[in-house]
Amino acid sequence: MADFTEIRKGEIKLPFDPADRGEATVSFIGHIRSDWSRGHGPRNVGQARGMGGGNARIELRPGYAPGLTGLAVGQVIWVLYWMDKARRDLIVQAPRHADGLRGTFALRSPVRPNPVSMSAVRITALDMDSGVIGIDATDAFDGTPVVDIKPMLDTVDIPPPA
Amino acid sequence: MADFTEIRKGEIKLPFDPADRGEATVSFIGHIRSDWSRGHGPRNVGQARGMGGGNARIELRPGYAPGLTGLAVGQVIWVLYWMDKARRDLIVQAPRHADGLRGTFALRSPVRPNPVSMSAVRITALDMDSGVIGIDATDAFDGTPVVDIKPMLDTVDIPPPA
Repeated sequence: MADFTEIRKGEIKLPFDPADRGEATVSFIGHIRSDWSRGHGPRNVGQARGMGGGNARIELRPGYAPGLTGLAVGQVIWVLYWMDKARRDLIVQAPRHADGLRGTFALRSPVRPNPVSMSAVRITALDMDSGVIGIDATDAFDGTPVVDIKPMLDTVDIPPPA
Repeated sequence: MADFTEIRKGEIKLPFDPADRGEATVSFIGHIRSDWSRGHGPRNVGQARGMGGGNARIELRPGYAPGLTGLAVGQVIWVLYWMDKARRDLIVQAPRHADGLRGTFALRSPVRPNPVSMSAVRITALDMDSGVIGIDATDAFDGTPVVDIKPMLDTVDIPPPA
C-alpha cells in the first residue's frame, strides 16, 4: 500500500477526501485477472501490449454473463475498472514520468476523486456460460474490480475534427 | 421517472439490484448543464452535435478547478457521468432502436449495473477560476452528475488493428 500522507513538491490536496463523501454506490460486476501486481506491471494498456498483454481476462460474477449477448471475438470494448488501491484526494499531481505539475483531470493517473480507469481492448475469447472474456491486454493488477463493459462505437467515441 | 417495474418481452432481470450491493462510493465532482431533459434530448453525443450541442458545459464543485491545470481549449476529453435516473437491474434489454435482444454490456444504454456513461467531447472554453468547462456537445440531461474528466490519449484509447 502506498503512503497516502506523502505529497510531492507543488502537489495540491483537496480540502476533503472524496472517499468520505459518497453520493452513489458502485457494485462490482467482476474482476480482471492478469500477471501484474503493484510494482510489477505496465504504465498503461499500450505498454501492456508491448509486454505481451499480461494473460488478461475478465471474470464476471454470477448473474452477469447474459450481459455479453451480442458481443463477439475481435470486437473492441471499453473496460471500466476501479483502482481500489489509489488515494483520491490529490487534485494537482507531480507525476514521475511528466515534467512539471498537472491537474488530475489532465492525467490518466489512478489517483483521482473517483478512481475509475478505462481501457479500449479487443475481445480474444468469449465464454458465455462461465462469463469469462479474454482481452488482448490490460494494465490492471490481478484482482482489480470491474465496474462496466461497453462496446466501442466509432460514431460516439471519436469526435469530429475541430 | 421511468416505470422501474416495466419489462419488455425477452428482457432479463438480474436476481438482485446492484443498487443494493454497494462496494465503493462515488462522489460527484460537478454537474453537466445542458438544454436537455427527460424526453427532450438526443440519443447519443453524435446526435447531440447534429442538434447544436445543447449549450453544454460542466460546472465543477468547489475545490476541483485546479484539476483542470494542463488542459486547453480544443483538446478532447472524456467525460464520465452518472445516469442517476436509470434502473440498474436489467442484464438483457430490448432497445427500441435495435432489432432483437442485446446484453447490457453490448449496449451503451444508461440502464446498466453501474450507470456510468462516457462521451468524448472537445473543450470549447475553460475558466480555471470558476471551474467551468465549455464542451462542444452532450447527450446528458441538465443537472447530470459528473464522475470524472480525463484527457483522451490516442496511444491508450485507440487499440491497434486486429
